[in-house]
Amino acid sequence: MGGEKDTLDLSDLNASLPAAAAALSAEDRAGLVNALKSLAGQHADVLETLSPNVRKRVEFLREIQGEHDEIEAKFFEERAALEAKYQKLYEPLYTKRYEIVNGVVEVDGISDEPTSENAAEGKESDAKGVPDFWLTAMKTNEVLSEEIQERDEPALKYLKDIKWSRIEDPKGFKLEFFFDTNPFFKNSILTKTYHMVDEDDPILEKAIGTEIEWHPGKNITQKVLKKKPKKGSKNAKPITKTEACESFFNFFNPPQVPDDEEDIDEETADELQSQMENDYDIGTTIRDKIIPHAVSWFTGEAVQADDFEDMGDDDEDDDEDDDDEDDEDEDEEEDEDDEEESKPARKSGSGRKQKVPQKVPQGNAEQPAECKQQ
Amino acid sequence: MGGEKDTLDLSDLNASLPAAAAALSAEDRAGLVNALKSLAGQHADVLETLSPNVRKRVEFLREIQGEHDEIEAKFFEERAALEAKYQKLYEPLYTKRYEIVNGVVEVDGISDEPTSENAAEGKESDAKGVPDFWLTAMKTNEVLSEEIQERDEPALKYLKDIKWSRIEDPKGFKLEFFFDTNPFFKNSILTKTYHMVDEDDPILEKAIGTEIEWHPGKNITQKVLKKKPKKGSKNAKPITKTEACESFFNFFNPPQVPDDEEDIDEETADELQSQMENDYDIGTTIRDKIIPHAVSWFTGEAVQADDFEDMGDDDEDDDEDDDDEDDEDEDEEEDEDDEEESKPARKSGSGRKQKVPQKVPQGNAEQPAECKQQ
Repeated sequence: MGGEKDTLDLSDLNASLPAAAAALSAEDRAGLVNALKSLAGQHADVLETLSPNVRKRVEFLREIQGEHDEIEAKFFEERAALEAKYQKLYEPLYTKRYEIVNGVVEVDGISDEPTSENAAEGKESDAKGVPDFWLTAMKTNEVLSEEIQERDEPALKYLKDIKWSRIEDPKGFKLEFFFDTNPFFKNSILTKTYHMVDEDDPILEKAIGTEIEWHPGKNITQKVLKKKPKKGSKNAKPITKTEACESFFNFFNPPQVPDDEEDIDEETADELQSQMENDYDIGTTIRDKIIPHAVSWFTGEAVQADDFEDMGDDDEDDDEDDDDEDDEDEDEEEDEDDEEESKPARKSGSGRKQKVPQKVPQGNAEQPAECKQQ
Repeated sequence: MGGEKDTLDLSDLNASLPAAAAALSAEDRAGLVNALKSLAGQHADVLETLSPNVRKRVEFLREIQGEHDEIEAKFFEERAALEAKYQKLYEPLYTKRYEIVNGVVEVDGISDEPTSENAAEGKESDAKGVPDFWLTAMKTNEVLSEEIQERDEPALKYLKDIKWSRIEDPKGFKLEFFFDTNPFFKNSILTKTYHMVDEDDPILEKAIGTEIEWHPGKNITQKVLKKKPKKGSKNAKPITKTEACESFFNFFNPPQVPDDEEDIDEETADELQSQMENDYDIGTTIRDKIIPHAVSWFTGEAVQADDFEDMGDDDEDDDEDDDDEDDEDEDEEEDEDDEEESKPARKSGSGRKQKVPQKVPQGNAEQPAECKQQ
C-alpha cells in the first residue's frame, strides 16, 4: 500500500477557486482567499492534534477520499445526463398534452353536432380542449388542494401549461406557469425559482417568484377594506386598508428571511422555517407529481395509486421480518437483529403524510375568516 | 392523430393486481379487488361528468400518459442501475478506509519507535488505526452533533464502520452500524431501516431499529432513579424508577405511531410528525453525507465546503437577474419576469438550514437537566 502524501497546499488556493469566484473584483477575491486560508488553517489544526502515525494514516485516507470524490463527480454527471435524456423523451408527449388540453389540435371522432345528451344537459359541445385541466389536476392533489382557495379558481382556469427545468449556477430548478390572456393579471408566464445550497442535498437557499402585475382591483391575494371616515373628520375620503388573503398566488411571493437573522426571535424563525418548508414542498409536488402525471391527477387515478400502495403495504406486514442482511467481508459476529417495529404512520385515507411539513398560514397578516375582493 | 380508446376495463382488475397481492388469501384478495373496483368507480364518475367530446380528449390524454409512464419506469430502472454501478465502484475504497481506520492494514512509513515529539507529548505511538474516527466524523456534522450526547461518546468510540444499502419490497434503505466488542451492549451490528411509501417520493412509511441488548446497568438511554422508601413503610427495598435520557442510541428506537391515529390529538400528532422528520433527517445525513465523505468530516473539510458554498452565493447575488427562460414553442407573449427576491435563509456560519426540521426532544419523558447512569 502506497504512502504518498496529499497535503493541503495553501499556495494553490488562488488557482483552484471555482469559476464563480473569477467574476469577483480583485478586492472581493482577495477577501475570499483570506477567508479560505483561515478555514484551511482550522483544518490543519485538526491534523496537528494527531500523533504522527495517525496523521500519516489520515493523509492516506484523504487520498482515498479524493479518489472517491472523483468517481462521485462522474456519478453526478452521468445522473444529470440520464435525467436530461429522459426529459427529452417526455417533451413530445408534454407537447401533445398541451395541444389537446388547449384545443390547438383535435383528436379523432369528435362530433360537431350537439348530441341529444348534450342538449338535454345544456352542455356546450363546442368547448375547446379540456376545460379546467390544470386547476382540476392540482386540486386533486392533497398538498396543493390546501393552497387553492375558492377565489383562486377563476384565475387558475386560465392556466394553459406548467413546465419545469433544472437551473445551474446556482443549482436548483424553475417552474413556469403559462397563462392565457385573463382579466386578473398581465403576466403570461409566472415563474418560481428555487436555489439550492448543495448538489445532492435538498437544502433550500432561497425561493424567487415573479411579481404579479394585477389588473386594478383584481389582486386575489389582497382584501381591500374601506372604512367610512368619522363624522366631522377633516378628510372626507374613505380610508382604504389592505389585508393579506390566503391564495395560491402567494406561492409567487415566497417567505423572505430578514437581512440580519439575529433580528428575529426563535418563534418567528421557526414559523419562517416551517413556511419555507411548506413552500418547497409545494414546488416539488408540482415538479415531481403534477407535471409528469397531470392526466392521472385530472382523472383521479393518481390519488387511487397512492391509496392502493398503502393498502398493499398494510397487507404485507407479515412478510417484513425477512432478513436481508448483506454479506459482510469483515468477520463480524452476525448477531440476530431483533427489530422493533414502529407502526405505519400513514394509512389509507387518513391523509396524514410524513415529510409533508405542517400547513402554516401564508401571507403577512392574520387571515380574515372570509376574504373577498371588494 | 389516432383516437383509439383506452378505457378502464374493470374485468382486468383481478389479472392486473401487483405481485404483492398474489400472496394474500383468497378472501383478502376478494376484499382488495372490491375496494379497487369502488375506487375505479370513482374514477369512472369523473369521466362521466365530462361532455362526450371532452371525454374523448381525456381518453386520448390517458394514452399519452400511459406512454409517459412506460418511459418513466425505464428511467427509474436505469437510474437504479446507475446508482448500483457506482456503489460497486465505491466499495473497494470503503473497504480500504475500513482497514486503515481499524488498523487491519498499515500504511507505509509508520515508525515503531516513539519519536521525541511523541515522548514529549506523552502520546502512544502504537495506537492502532485512527482512534474515534466515526465519532469525530459524526460530531463534526451539524445535524448529528445535536444528537450525540457526552455520555454517548464512550460507546461510539467502538464504532468500526457504517454502511448503507437500498432495500426493495418495501422500497427504502438500511443503515448498518458495526461495533467492536464493547462494555455497553451485546450487539455487534445495530441496524436502522426506513420503509418509504413511494418510488420517487421521500415519504416515510415507517422506521425500524435494532433492539439494543444493553449490558446490565449500561443502558445509556435510561437513567435509573433510586428512592429511599418512606420511614415505616412495609417494603424496605428502595424504589427504582427509570427515566428516558437524550441519547444518540434513541435513533434505534424511532418514534412509533399508535395503531389508531384517531386516538391522538393534533398537538401530539404534530410533535410525532416533527420527530419522524427529524429521525429521517438523521438517517439521510448519515447515508448521503457521513458514509460517502467520512474522511472529510473527520478532518473538518466537509464543513468548510458547506461554508464556502454559502460565501460564494453571497457574492454572486448581482448575477442573479440573468434571464434563462427556455425557448417556448407555444407563441406565448414573453412578458419580462420581474422577479422579487427573498433573502438567503442560510448564511455562512449562521448554522440555520432549510429542510432541516426543528430539533424535538427524543425519548418518552421530559428530559432531566442531567442524565447520568447511576
